[in-house]
Amino acid sequence: MKNKEAFYLEQVEEALARALPEPKAADLQGTVIRAMRYSLLLGGKRVRPMLTLAFCELCGGSVEQAIPFACAVEMVHTYSLIHDDMPCMDNDDLRRGKPTNHKVFGEAMALLAGDGLLTKAFEVALSGELKAEIAASGTRLLASLAGDQGMVGGQCIDLEADGKSVDLTTLQEMHSKKTVALIAAACSLGCIAAGGTEQQLEAARRYAQGIGMAFQIRDDVLDVLGSPEKLGKNVGVDEKLQKRNYVSLLGVTEAQRLVEEYTGKALTALKDFSGNTEFLRAFAESLAVRER
Amino acid sequence: MKNKEAFYLEQVEEALARALPEPKAADLQGTVIRAMRYSLLLGGKRVRPMLTLAFCELCGGSVEQAIPFACAVEMVHTYSLIHDDMPCMDNDDLRRGKPTNHKVFGEAMALLAGDGLLTKAFEVALSGELKAEIAASGTRLLASLAGDQGMVGGQCIDLEADGKSVDLTTLQEMHSKKTVALIAAACSLGCIAAGGTEQQLEAARRYAQGIGMAFQIRDDVLDVLGSPEKLGKNVGVDEKLQKRNYVSLLGVTEAQRLVEEYTGKALTALKDFSGNTEFLRAFAESLAVRER
Repeated sequence: MKNKEAFYLEQVEEALARALPEPKAADLQGTVIRAMRYSLLLGGKRVRPMLTLAFCELCGGSVEQAIPFACAVEMVHTYSLIHDDMPCMDNDDLRRGKPTNHKVFGEAMALLAGDGLLTKAFEVALSGELKAEIAASGTRLLASLAGDQGMVGGQCIDLEADGKSVDLTTLQEMHSKKTVALIAAACSLGCIAAGGTEQQLEAARRYAQGIGMAFQIRDDVLDVLGSPEKLGKNVGVDEKLQKRNYVSLLGVTEAQRLVEEYTGKALTALKDFSGNTEFLRAFAESLAVRER
Repeated sequence: MKNKEAFYLEQVEEALARALPEPKAADLQGTVIRAMRYSLLLGGKRVRPMLTLAFCELCGGSVEQAIPFACAVEMVHTYSLIHDDMPCMDNDDLRRGKPTNHKVFGEAMALLAGDGLLTKAFEVALSGELKAEIAASGTRLLASLAGDQGMVGGQCIDLEADGKSVDLTTLQEMHSKKTVALIAAACSLGCIAAGGTEQQLEAARRYAQGIGMAFQIRDDVLDVLGSPEKLGKNVGVDEKLQKRNYVSLLGVTEAQRLVEEYTGKALTALKDFSGNTEFLRAFAESLAVRER
């Protein structure tokens, strides 16, 4: 799995840098391009584009076929981080240990850099050698899962839940839009790029749902395990804890049980594929026990 | 022309409202959808989508064929206004006589509403009954003209020119990206929707270039004519006037002459079409003498 991961990662990094070249000396808008590149090429786990490549290969396609969609999904993810970090949203100064986009380029330029990356995502998604039907249907799916019925909708739910207690249904709806939707886009787009069947697409969505929810709930578990004194004080009874994560709603044991249940669902979904699922299986399993 | 304009306007307003329906009661992300609708359905001249419809008809297509592209272009325009009005950009409180999006919904929600509209634009562009080749190539063109090489690039140039004197070349580059690019997208997408020829596309781009520049320079002329005491004080000699508009660089007479020159270029471009160009001719002429 490690070799495969390193290979995918290398392909993704190269393709992203190629998709958004450095500005030419004569470009008067060089700053916004540099701001876009700053966040896009900052590294990161590249979870989403790797999933696109893996599902494309699993459905019999090539890495090259999947590259435009893979880059597009990562650009959508990156724009959402830039805008999320802005002062009017989460007001974060650091991202992956580096100053956030608006800290380096200013708020106005960060806003434009996010807008530019979101726009570029759709240009790149439509830029490959894929058949027009495939390019168009994949790109439309990406837009629908990234927009008000998907990721942007989830951010709205998150924003309005800020400082409030929410029930489990709301929490699940929030994560299924905010996080799972783009992971589902990543997996589905791999299948679409390869010309996969409807059954494969449906299985890819179930896998995405499984690892997406497991990823999110594991996040909440790590939040608590990361600070044991907080654990003792907050879990179960402390009313000051915002009831908007799985641990505060269910307790740490039940939350981790859910992580494993969702991971199991992802692994089950892989059984619908006849190809080599080793990478995707190991990937799902590693998310369930990750420590950071 | 007035009848045609009213007809186009009605088609556009109906299609926009249909493309972004009111949230259902169960939608937890209703607020962002309401914020998107607030700005999208606020009215306005609908210059861009009307151009898309008119060029589609001129190239032998139907209004219905052009509607997805027309809505997409207007959504891109609307998102750019929402983000432009935000405190970190122009910090405007009013738009078309109504409170700006962030004044009504707050900054974070306005940011999301803009992101949602930009995303929706690409979903809608790919949603019609057009052949996949046409949908994909039109949508890719929209993305390239709206992004860092087009509108977003122009906004970056504008931002960096703020408070500085710029030369005529920079001014033209700024407007050709910030304003003309999306108008060119609007005109081109009409031709593409109709399956127009390469020659028609090229003529549509020349028309767009002509009316786009004329529109922008007329804006600068009106700025000055609108306040005569400012005219006497500022034009030509006053060093305090930011040298970043056509009147301050060229004087009002030469600027208006340029408006007419660009309008003439737009009218010449129409000669390459064999269909009825009456609407587009009258449209170009009206822009050159508009008073607001």
